[in-house]
Amino acid sequence: MVSGGVTKFAKALPTMDFRMRVKKAFDYAMNDAGITLDQIDGSVASYFADHFQRQLMSGIMVQDYLGLTPKPSKRVEGGGATGGLAFQTGFEEIASGRMDVCAVYGFESMSHVNTWKGNEFIALASDTNFDYPVGGFYTGYYAMMARRHMHEFGTTVEQLAKVSIKNHKNALNNPYAQSPMNLTVEDVRNSPMVASPLTRLDVCAMSDGAAVAILASKEKAFELSDHPVLVKSIGTGTDTMRLADRPFLKVPLLPNETEGDYSKLEYPGIHSFRAGRTAAKEAYQGAGITDPLEEIDFVELHDAYTSSEIQTYEDLGLCKYGEGGSFVESGKADLGGKVAVNPSGGLLACGHPVGATGIMQSVFAFWQLQNTIGKHFGNDKLQVKNAKRGLIHSHAGTGTYVTVSIMEAVQ
Amino acid sequence: MVSGGVTKFAKALPTMDFRMRVKKAFDYAMNDAGITLDQIDGSVASYFADHFQRQLMSGIMVQDYLGLTPKPSKRVEGGGATGGLAFQTGFEEIASGRMDVCAVYGFESMSHVNTWKGNEFIALASDTNFDYPVGGFYTGYYAMMARRHMHEFGTTVEQLAKVSIKNHKNALNNPYAQSPMNLTVEDVRNSPMVASPLTRLDVCAMSDGAAVAILASKEKAFELSDHPVLVKSIGTGTDTMRLADRPFLKVPLLPNETEGDYSKLEYPGIHSFRAGRTAAKEAYQGAGITDPLEEIDFVELHDAYTSSEIQTYEDLGLCKYGEGGSFVESGKADLGGKVAVNPSGGLLACGHPVGATGIMQSVFAFWQLQNTIGKHFGNDKLQVKNAKRGLIHSHAGTGTYVTVSIMEAVQ
Repeated sequence: MVSGGVTKFAKALPTMDFRMRVKKAFDYAMNDAGITLDQIDGSVASYFADHFQRQLMSGIMVQDYLGLTPKPSKRVEGGGATGGLAFQTGFEEIASGRMDVCAVYGFESMSHVNTWKGNEFIALASDTNFDYPVGGFYTGYYAMMARRHMHEFGTTVEQLAKVSIKNHKNALNNPYAQSPMNLTVEDVRNSPMVASPLTRLDVCAMSDGAAVAILASKEKAFELSDHPVLVKSIGTGTDTMRLADRPFLKVPLLPNETEGDYSKLEYPGIHSFRAGRTAAKEAYQGAGITDPLEEIDFVELHDAYTSSEIQTYEDLGLCKYGEGGSFVESGKADLGGKVAVNPSGGLLACGHPVGATGIMQSVFAFWQLQNTIGKHFGNDKLQVKNAKRGLIHSHAGTGTYVTVSIMEAVQ
Repeated sequence: MVSGGVTKFAKALPTMDFRMRVKKAFDYAMNDAGITLDQIDGSVASYFADHFQRQLMSGIMVQDYLGLTPKPSKRVEGGGATGGLAFQTGFEEIASGRMDVCAVYGFESMSHVNTWKGNEFIALASDTNFDYPVGGFYTGYYAMMARRHMHEFGTTVEQLAKVSIKNHKNALNNPYAQSPMNLTVEDVRNSPMVASPLTRLDVCAMSDGAAVAILASKEKAFELSDHPVLVKSIGTGTDTMRLADRPFLKVPLLPNETEGDYSKLEYPGIHSFRAGRTAAKEAYQGAGITDPLEEIDFVELHDAYTSSEIQTYEDLGLCKYGEGGSFVESGKADLGGKVAVNPSGGLLACGHPVGATGIMQSVFAFWQLQNTIGKHFGNDKLQVKNAKRGLIHSHAGTGTYVTVSIMEAVQ
């Protein structure tokens, strides 16, 4: 990776067209590394819902607006994991030898659609024959998983709140974040209930935004940038659309796990993300990681819900199965802790403009590994000291697509 | 490529779910080469419109139905070129070393939606701020291009009709085709006018269908199949969403062209597809092709309109700029002619279930190069004799995304 750019994620920017948003992030990335248009061989477009845009094929409109026609491009999509999948596709464009330099652009404009309608669009991303007609919705699915986690492992709502507090607090120093906040456990618990046990502050918000990552082959990377960052490995997993199809599915073991960690559980498929573990396993194999907590300095993960951050600690092997609640409580996931999780503020505090989110994570990770957070944020309070290796994690549906990519500083 | 499968393309198969359709094509491909599920490393999903399905993330539902979870997957989309882009993404999954065996599955269910509503969905794939509000629609855009081609080069409606006659006739021997027909010029001209000069028989139909291509690394290919086919090279181009932005854009030259061939034209961007030429150029470079007419044995191209087949002859360098009309008249594009174009019947006669179409082309090309059309069609009348090299061509919008891939028989 040789450069990146992000717009401020925010609600209600109706005057800014989605193309303008992407161009803003794109220009930032191009200028930051001094890259010119003729050096870009092609692109990958990342956006979720044609419905939100009331426009199919938005990607080609962005391609044109950026001045990238007639170069190759395609759209990659996979719900909430769209950004992560597009980033990995950019990686494959380079690794396959097809392109030397690839621009991956992600965007979403959501806030012009009212929440009710927006929820309807998002609900169409669950099984419309089974779940949708009976009122199934994502907050409900996640609430159910959280309840099971609490029942099985004794996880508490206070532990969920800790995730919200940590991420919103980190965002106080991230100028790109939508909702920086200083919160207490009481604030989180007293905010409006969405789906018990998840309150308003346990759930990320819809957002408008764009993010751009520019990837290059090894040779080109050193031509284009003084400080490229290595994309060491990628991993992807998938799972059934419906939670109901998942309770008894076997969960893959991570390198630092033994069967005993989950084999006694009644419903492993409900509180663990099989796709997340599959993705982590592939990425760890590719990077030669056997002890994630020791070998990874920071993680930008898909915390659409506080409970899913806790589930994901476990699925990434940062702690043992069932110990996600105490993990956040221990402070190990804090900035300055053992492994900073969502130093940017994550989706909870940055916002979640779907197609942009996974790309945003890659940009923040890129800056961390370049040691340039101070330059790009205007303050270096969120810079993870001596960050050598970061993990980015993108996640769709109830865990239908999950991507994990490992990025490393280049000495 | 080691195997392929296609369902019969047809209208009104409401009792068959899109998953069942894909499974049918998938099982055919798996059985034909004797491939087992555990040999598949991952997949690429190809489908166009969430709107048609009234279901987002259909790809993951197919992934699950085929038994491919938790393996990696992603959806690739690019309007009418979705299938071609997904096929090329499968190629890149292999070429990048990420997978050894990749299943690329394409599908679309369109006929349950009435034509009026379907047209509205498709219209959302044009610029909804400029073209859509003033009644712009694809048949109109193509009619405009056809008119300009006629004005500039003297192309006739009878020449357009020849394309329809040829493709519908070829389909008489293709058991997978939706509309095999024996037609005369009068039949085509007397069918209902859609957008002058294009009649009903100048335009492809909406369809239901699925197609699957299984791609493998060189090593794996020879393990899995006695008759693999080489995907020699790929090319992709893009262009502006609106025709109105295109008239004066410079058109790339093909290896066998000189500037004089189009430099005197007033509006090169209206009767040539810049993205098509860009894609062809990249694919020809990759395959070392300098004289397409001599070096390619057959072409499966995106004939959504008879006029676009004529335009595409030129953009693929099968004839000179402006000579597409006389090219089809000469019989060179007939089965048994210099280069068989759409021996399968193309989109005009096979139907165009968007996400499946480009994959279908790859399957037919695969069988041609395996010399197994007789086996798969039940008759070998459409087998191109001594086919050594084929070209497949997928196309979106008014030429916004175009893919060209070159496939070769393995000796």
